[in-house]
Amino acid sequence: MESMPDIRIILVRPQHPGNIGACARAMKNMGLKHLVLVAPQRLPDDEAMARAAGAGDILSAATIVADVGAAVADCVFVAATSARARTIAWPRLDARAAASVACAQARSGPVGILFGAERTGLTNEEVDYAHVLVQIPVDPGFASLNLAAAVQILCYEIRCAVQEPAPGPGPEPEHRPAPQEALNGFLQHLERVITAIGFLNPHHPRKLMRRLTRLFRRARPDDNELQILRGILSAIEHPYPARGGPRPGPDNT
Amino acid sequence: MESMPDIRIILVRPQHPGNIGACARAMKNMGLKHLVLVAPQRLPDDEAMARAAGAGDILSAATIVADVGAAVADCVFVAATSARARTIAWPRLDARAAASVACAQARSGPVGILFGAERTGLTNEEVDYAHVLVQIPVDPGFASLNLAAAVQILCYEIRCAVQEPAPGPGPEPEHRPAPQEALNGFLQHLERVITAIGFLNPHHPRKLMRRLTRLFRRARPDDNELQILRGILSAIEHPYPARGGPRPGPDNT
Repeated sequence: MESMPDIRIILVRPQHPGNIGACARAMKNMGLKHLVLVAPQRLPDDEAMARAAGAGDILSAATIVADVGAAVADCVFVAATSARARTIAWPRLDARAAASVACAQARSGPVGILFGAERTGLTNEEVDYAHVLVQIPVDPGFASLNLAAAVQILCYEIRCAVQEPAPGPGPEPEHRPAPQEALNGFLQHLERVITAIGFLNPHHPRKLMRRLTRLFRRARPDDNELQILRGILSAIEHPYPARGGPRPGPDNT
Repeated sequence: MESMPDIRIILVRPQHPGNIGACARAMKNMGLKHLVLVAPQRLPDDEAMARAAGAGDILSAATIVADVGAAVADCVFVAATSARARTIAWPRLDARAAASVACAQARSGPVGILFGAERTGLTNEEVDYAHVLVQIPVDPGFASLNLAAAVQILCYEIRCAVQEPAPGPGPEPEHRPAPQEALNGFLQHLERVITAIGFLNPHHPRKLMRRLTRLFRRARPDDNELQILRGILSAIEHPYPARGGPRPGPDNT
């Protein structure tokens, strides 16, 4: 894990202390530390601390400034989140691309990401400080993201960008499919047993065994699982009813 | 914009109505509609409605069920979010890969994503219903994500995945996994039969059945394959040796 970049989260005129606390928690979950509050309507308080839930250190260390200019004064790169379409033609990035660019820029110096007030967003003058507008993909029919939710998504994307290249599905840990010959040995055993119990008609075996083969190949059992399956087959061949109670036999059909 | 897939968000024993409301809002922001509450400690109330902030329709339409089994009964694919490391080796995907796979699987039928209770998460028995574990990248030093934040990230990734369909594994052509309840019916039948033949000790059933559950969930049998497997189980219970020649029994061990 690389160390996290110097990207500060800047809340502009936030209204609800609960949201400020939730933003602090979202930041800390993703490994970001530097919170800036621009002219908050109320300072972080008990409600903020409660919603921060363990990220109180981020709240206590938050920088409080009077305007966006002060918040980004030493930043080499500024991005502004924006829900609404703006008439001004500004470079736009989605959250993923913005996180990637922000991480790259943070190698040169501090980077700031601006989040507007809950109801009113950022003014055009505030957006003027930004190099890019960030748009988070949302349903256009219900586009109003909670402030902490927007911060959560950006911080998450920053963490993903730092961890790049993305891990992707990759192999299942600790799952080592058994070699084909072990699987085939099981399938032959299965065929013998289901023939013996009268389920497989040896005169028309093909389609059924092909289906079972396809099913178990898809499952890719490991050695341990094959051992269990073969144990079941052996128990069918040589039932040991002592532990399991009465064994249903041909008589009680 | 494609239409959104049928992916339901399943909150298991959620404790705080505020979180339930915030989850509903997060879903609606990203265009998801179907919320399921498993044994909620409190039903959605005024606090939930307040935090839903316009997503009250999602709350009102939420399905309330008693357990995870009922929540995923008709699902063809289930993912479980998990913060903690689990000893059992389960396939793991990060949030992005999981969203991509979930969207692909949703073409075959309903998909469910499980989120555990705020403090306790999901039990191992609940995770047993899942095909994959989902892990959201977090700072290991402060890994505890708020419930609504976790839902927000998954729903966001689902929206991103819909907008840019990744190549991804995708479902096998013409392979339509059976609903969970059909698979569970088979697993219960299997448990009965291997108990009856003395393979499963009913006093220590758990690990063995969990391994078999994992194996068959991974295989994702379709209806036809389940029919074959249950046919084998019935033949074990009521052997019909006429077609298959001599049946190896307890006598010829």
